[in-house]
Amino acid sequence: MGTAEFNWPVRVYYEDTDAGGIVYNANYLKFLERARTEWLRTLGIEQDTLLEQDIAFVVRHVDIQFRQAARFNQQLNVSCHVAELKRASIVFEQKIIDESGSLIVSAAVTVACVRISQMKPVAIPEAVSGVILRATN
Amino acid sequence: MGTAEFNWPVRVYYEDTDAGGIVYNANYLKFLERARTEWLRTLGIEQDTLLEQDIAFVVRHVDIQFRQAARFNQQLNVSCHVAELKRASIVFEQKIIDESGSLIVSAAVTVACVRISQMKPVAIPEAVSGVILRATN
Amino acid sequence: MGTAEFNWPVRVYYEDTDAGGIVYNANYLKFLERARTEWLRTLGIEQDTLLEQDIAFVVRHVDIQFRQAARFNQQLNVSCHVAELKRASIVFEQKIIDESGSLIVSAAVTVACVRISQMKPVAIPEAVSGVILRATN
Amino acid sequence: MGTAEFNWPVRVYYEDTDAGGIVYNANYLKFLERARTEWLRTLGIEQDTLLEQDIAFVVRHVDIQFRQAARFNQQLNVSCHVAELKRASIVFEQKIIDESGSLIVSAAVTVACVRISQMKPVAIPEAVSGVILRATN
Repeated sequence: MGTAEFNWPVRVYYEDTDAGGIVYNANYLKFLERARTEWLRTLGIEQDTLLEQDIAFVVRHVDIQFRQAARFNQQLNVSCHVAELKRASIVFEQKIIDESGSLIVSAAVTVACVRISQMKPVAIPEAVSGVILRATN
Repeated sequence: MGTAEFNWPVRVYYEDTDAGGIVYNANYLKFLERARTEWLRTLGIEQDTLLEQDIAFVVRHVDIQFRQAARFNQQLNVSCHVAELKRASIVFEQKIIDESGSLIVSAAVTVACVRISQMKPVAIPEAVSGVILRATN
Repeated sequence: MGTAEFNWPVRVYYEDTDAGGIVYNANYLKFLERARTEWLRTLGIEQDTLLEQDIAFVVRHVDIQFRQAARFNQQLNVSCHVAELKRASIVFEQKIIDESGSLIVSAAVTVACVRISQMKPVAIPEAVSGVILRATN
Repeated sequence: MGTAEFNWPVRVYYEDTDAGGIVYNANYLKFLERARTEWLRTLGIEQDTLLEQDIAFVVRHVDIQFRQAARFNQQLNVSCHVAELKRASIVFEQKIIDESGSLIVSAAVTVACVRISQMKPVAIPEAVSGVILRATN
């Protein structure tokens, strides 16, 4: 795939932290998804419209390294890059860095396209995959 | 209403806390709902079955006092008492206390019965309201 | 207090919704807090700096009306208005509306200033209360 | 390591689900952590006591496969097995299954022992590693 990369800012609020004083591990998965969602939006793809067509992108696999802890009130940047576009799934490579450029999290996330009423894999609609192909080449 | 009270234990995990070292405020609303859900379950009312009938209990109003902070790893008790049973809504009085009996949270929670596809209020199904009436009298 | 009002946009992501297809009730409290945090930030008040001084604003009371359900992918606006500034606490009036201006949530939120190591109420530092006074008059 | 396996029940509440009608992906990480926490508790290890000693177990790496979707109100079982005990970290193998035994999630989770004030890796206290060794052999 091409080298296009999307970036999305995320502020760390109290809701995101835990008693260790750092961002709670599961919450990074939310940050990663926000970036993927906003990237799709910049391509004109709205997931509520997909949902009305019984289509959703569902996370199938996450391999995530927590490199360094982010803290309350930090301003983070979440990047999103398509590593692989398959017939019914997309593999993203994503990074979260802080204001100083320190790497907080790196992750590979595979999302599958499913018919949500049956939770069965389906091909990504051509209207969607076409837009993604053009954006990443 | 009668004096029957239901109690449900909740353990405080890292996921529930914030960087202040205490339970994050919004998470107490989750604890309150778990107790209401489990109380309904003891009455034989399963909310996934209601949802299949296009019926859900939706929170309409919460008045919640945060009296004292609960901390990581504490074992809390959440109580649930029906203060008022109306045609299409229920008012609960709920308390959260810690192991030593200290009051953490007190709340009044109004849930409305809605047809979820339209988000319109509907009468609580008789099968449900009858069971609640018998349990609280 | 004066009429100054602060507004903060919030997008509804999957993380914010529940199986009823709507924003999960507790998550609105997170949205309300984001707006209060960002309002403080515009006044030059950073809560991580306060935390280093052993000071935190802790939510003491919330009275929240859920008027209408917000749905996945909606763009909401959260407003924040100081209704009362006391020696050791602030009462906020807050509203959440959707893109069409429909009222989703209205709430009164009381936050107390506490010495976090002891969880004891303390006077709001003058540097903070002065800035708030000037901003709201 | 030995074959000892720990099991912890988790009920799916509204708070855990999303608008797709299924458990939100990040929330499975919370379920996995609850099981690890409760397993440590059965060994007599309380994490708030560790935290007072400036010690915390921090998640460093998660490789998680979402095999099948869990739904609202399901009763899940979360297992926890020590795959590897190192000087300053533990690798867990964990599974989540539903009432019918269907595999929902499988994951490998590496947690590191850190001095939380500095977020630096430290050897797992002998009192802790000894107990774990005895439990898993």
